[in-house]
Parts: sequence; structure tokens; C-alpha cells
Amino acid sequence: MMEGLDFKKGNGLIPAIVQDYKTKRVLMLAYINEESFKMTLQTGEAHYWSRSRNCLWHKGKTSGHVQKIKEIYVDCDNDTVLFLVEQVGGIACHTGHESCFYRRINRDGSFEIVDKKLQDEVEL
Amino acid sequence: MMEGLDFKKGNGLIPAIVQDYKTKRVLMLAYINEESFKMTLQTGEAHYWSRSRNCLWHKGKTSGHVQKIKEIYVDCDNDTVLFLVEQVGGIACHTGHESCFYRRINRDGSFEIVDKKLQDEVEL
Repeated sequence: MMEGLDFKKGNGLIPAIVQDYKTKRVLMLAYINEESFKMTLQTGEAHYWSRSRNCLWHKGKTSGHVQKIKEIYVDCDNDTVLFLVEQVGGIACHTGHESCFYRRINRDGSFEIVDKKLQDEVEL
Repeated sequence: MMEGLDFKKGNGLIPAIVQDYKTKRVLMLAYINEESFKMTLQTGEAHYWSRSRNCLWHKGKTSGHVQKIKEIYVDCDNDTVLFLVEQVGGIACHTGHESCFYRRINRDGSFEIVDKKLQDEVEL
């Protein structure tokens, strides 16, 4: 199981990039620990470690907006993973946007909202 | 400049997801600090903070395989950025693969190489 993932480098956590498997849009970045990764593999739905709440986080458990795992990749030095998912409900961000990356940074460093909110703040 | 980026949460570093602006393939994940981000905005080429070498890293400076910035996005809580880039030379990974994510993790946790090496180990 998880032959080579390097959880030590990040004090037990590894960043997981989450990408829509069809559109290839990057939806969010979250963190996994060993337990949440095992749960992800076992259930086929994304589980993370919530750094703010300090607990296992089955994304979408409450709202039903789970992330169904299509494929998982690991990077060359085993300290980052990439989840290709089907985002049920089409909204990955708690702000109600499809993606957490709904703001562009311009050359002058300013932020600009470039994406529509699909609904009000949501429970994830 | 950089109104809202939260460099404090990660001890001065923020993960940067790097995605090919045309194919939308995720190429790698690297880290930026404030200095490298300023350099990125100023030059239009990706600059990172190398955690292993503990220094500013202008990717591709030696090989010419720089990453030209097309767009930059920031996530909802200001602690992750997304670089959409043109990867000059077509190889982002030091192993000689197009992407650092050239191995798939199967349901049983095993790793499997699913992508061809384009050339031998390269200087990045």
C-alpha cells in the first residue's frame, strides 16, 4: 500500500491537486494524510485532511457534492498527488464557484474576479 | 503588490500548481516565496523557491526550458496559486518526462509508469 508516498517531508501531509477529469480545469488544492489517502482509495471518493478543522474531511459528505475519483497520479519525488475527479454538483469551492481559482492575478499584482458564482456559500 | 497572498501560513512559501495553458495538463507543483513571485510577475517567466537547494530558482535558466507565464490565478483562501504556462522545450520534469505526474496510483496503492520519457534526465 502506498509504496512510495513521502508523507514525512510535509509533517504527515501531502498536497493534492484536484482537477476535473473531463474539462481538465484545476478545481482546488487540498491536503491528504495517510489515513485520508487510504479512505480515498478504499471508497473511490476524495477524502482530505482539513488543516483548519484538524480532522478527516470527506468532501461533500453533507451536501452530496462528493468528488468521485477517476484517476490518481503521483509526482516524480512522491510528495504531491493529482486527483482527476468527477465533481458531483459542479461546485468545488465553498464560495459557490466551480473552482477555487476564480480570481486572476494581473501583472501589477492585483486580483480580479473572472468567474461567476454559481450559488451562495455552500457546505462542503 | 500581491494584495492578498498569504505567505505566512506556509512559513513564507505558497504552492504553485503549474498547468500547460493549451493542453491543460498539470505539469508540476513547486513553491514560491514573495521574492520569486515578484520575479515571476516582473519577468513573465516562472521563478520558484527551491526547497531542496534553498535558493531562488529561475526554472529553465540553464537549459532554456523556461516557463512563460500566460495567466496566474489565486485560490479562495489566498494560499495557493495556479500558473498557466507555455513550457518551452515541452519537458517540465527533471526526469525527462513532459509532466512530473507520469505515474498513476492504482486502487491497490501501487505505482505505474504511464507516460514516456522524452529524453534523459535534464537540467532544469
